[in-house]
Amino acid sequence: MNRSAELFPTRSALQEAHDRTKPWIQKTPVVTCAYFDEQTGANLYFKCENFQKTGSFKIRGVLNTVLGLDPAQTRHGLATFSSGNHARAVAYVASLHHLPSFIAMPATATKIKIAALKEYGAHLCYFNGKKGHREDVMARLLRKTDASFIHPYNAMDTIIGQSGVAKELIEEIFPPLDSIVVPVGGGGLLAGTALAAAHFSPKTVVFGAEPELADGAFVSFLAGRRIETDFAATIADGLRTNIGERNCAIMLKLTAGILQVAEDEIYQALLQVWHRMKIVVEPSAAVALAAVLRNPRLFQGKRIGILFSGGNLDLPLGNA
Amino acid sequence: MNRSAELFPTRSALQEAHDRTKPWIQKTPVVTCAYFDEQTGANLYFKCENFQKTGSFKIRGVLNTVLGLDPAQTRHGLATFSSGNHARAVAYVASLHHLPSFIAMPATATKIKIAALKEYGAHLCYFNGKKGHREDVMARLLRKTDASFIHPYNAMDTIIGQSGVAKELIEEIFPPLDSIVVPVGGGGLLAGTALAAAHFSPKTVVFGAEPELADGAFVSFLAGRRIETDFAATIADGLRTNIGERNCAIMLKLTAGILQVAEDEIYQALLQVWHRMKIVVEPSAAVALAAVLRNPRLFQGKRIGILFSGGNLDLPLGNA
Repeated sequence: MNRSAELFPTRSALQEAHDRTKPWIQKTPVVTCAYFDEQTGANLYFKCENFQKTGSFKIRGVLNTVLGLDPAQTRHGLATFSSGNHARAVAYVASLHHLPSFIAMPATATKIKIAALKEYGAHLCYFNGKKGHREDVMARLLRKTDASFIHPYNAMDTIIGQSGVAKELIEEIFPPLDSIVVPVGGGGLLAGTALAAAHFSPKTVVFGAEPELADGAFVSFLAGRRIETDFAATIADGLRTNIGERNCAIMLKLTAGILQVAEDEIYQALLQVWHRMKIVVEPSAAVALAAVLRNPRLFQGKRIGILFSGGNLDLPLGNA
Repeated sequence: MNRSAELFPTRSALQEAHDRTKPWIQKTPVVTCAYFDEQTGANLYFKCENFQKTGSFKIRGVLNTVLGLDPAQTRHGLATFSSGNHARAVAYVASLHHLPSFIAMPATATKIKIAALKEYGAHLCYFNGKKGHREDVMARLLRKTDASFIHPYNAMDTIIGQSGVAKELIEEIFPPLDSIVVPVGGGGLLAGTALAAAHFSPKTVVFGAEPELADGAFVSFLAGRRIETDFAATIADGLRTNIGERNCAIMLKLTAGILQVAEDEIYQALLQVWHRMKIVVEPSAAVALAAVLRNPRLFQGKRIGILFSGGNLDLPLGNA
């Protein structure tokens, strides 16, 4: 495969990925909300991946990756680093295939995140915050287990898997959307969405949305190349990461820009979703709506798709 | 109409009420959750009135009442006492009909409850906790405005309106449910559900579910007559009331019993719904599920309908 084909997978690659992952995932609902339509003067269509199996879209990329591997490659199990949604997806997909899963997670991970992973039978080991320690722990884990490493975002099968979210949204909504707005961290969902729009709804413009406190994609977009930035403890914990290389290349080529939002805007959008729509989204998932609320002029009178990426929260559960 | 017909409205009365309220309300979804099915060993069907307009089932009773009144009776508007879901429903239905609404509410009502009512254009006045003061304020309000008083639960049109929740659930689920479990406060939803089951699914057994801290229906059921009890500040704020007279009569005749739940059981059920189902329910709405989780022997192997009565919470909204 040449470099350009690798960067920009074909329409049929996206179609095949969607077809093969479909039997294992939810076709999540698309919902509307009169209140937010009034607030924005736009028509908003919310794609609810918070109702997806494991509580986020991440299962799509993991499934697509694993279904594309030879069983010999995964017979020792699956491994990754992450304490959050990607780890859950890896652990769940491993359990579906009766494989062990190995997760390297920060020693500071919350009890409920740990409980969720154990529920899927994952084997956990911990790293501390020191530079390089995560990579050390991960490398040791891979040597010891021979498990197959599943990257959270910077891999084409992952990106293609995530494209299913926007593909389903595009197929459900007619007339076509003017824009789709997507939370961006590592950029798997953003890149997948940009590819889905390019292939299935070429007039639909894709924006990323990012916390000001973790602005790697924003800076990279403006610089026209991948730049790593420091990121602070944004409430949108799923977005505390820099954009991946492949993800960045697709972002630069196929998206219209990255919208920034402040912490309070994320928090207010989150609460308003709970309050008005009665559904639980996680802070990262509220980032795209926050960006639309912050930029009314950009979206007024338009038909906008908004991706609710997940619904996993650290609730104070007694038995978790 | 004789006493018995008044107590037990006919099947066609329920059908007509449902038909006339339908155009104004959501047909709320019925959802399932593999996690809770595993926890209980039962098949649970959750009827999501948290997604209903105004955030709870209360709109059904109010609408049915107002649609049954002569316009001359409501031309001065609608009035009620309540700070919660019933008040919202009255204010919303009044706004639909371009009528004023007048709400007598406790001086301690939260900012967000007040904001929700003002959003529907309601006129508010306040009473304090002193015995009889609520009735004084309400009587003065009615004299002054000549508005039509809409009781929150103890009225047959209200009860018949609420029957639509269980009617829709019964019509959607096949084979028929073994039981339906319903939160009970004033008993409008319980009585409506009992009537719907009696007329549309006579083999389905109806249970009420009530906080131990507000156990008026439990005590009344066991005594075989309406008994008023004191109630403490249960987290299930929508259920802090005694069962109404008509409601009690229907409960005694048509339900199988009242299940009690402790505060911590309500709170844990609430969090688990948020965590596992990713939907926002209010504490009162979690009471029926809490009762099923507490009584596995009663429900194991059965097909159970659970009513999620509402999703209105006092979230810390910045702009409310």
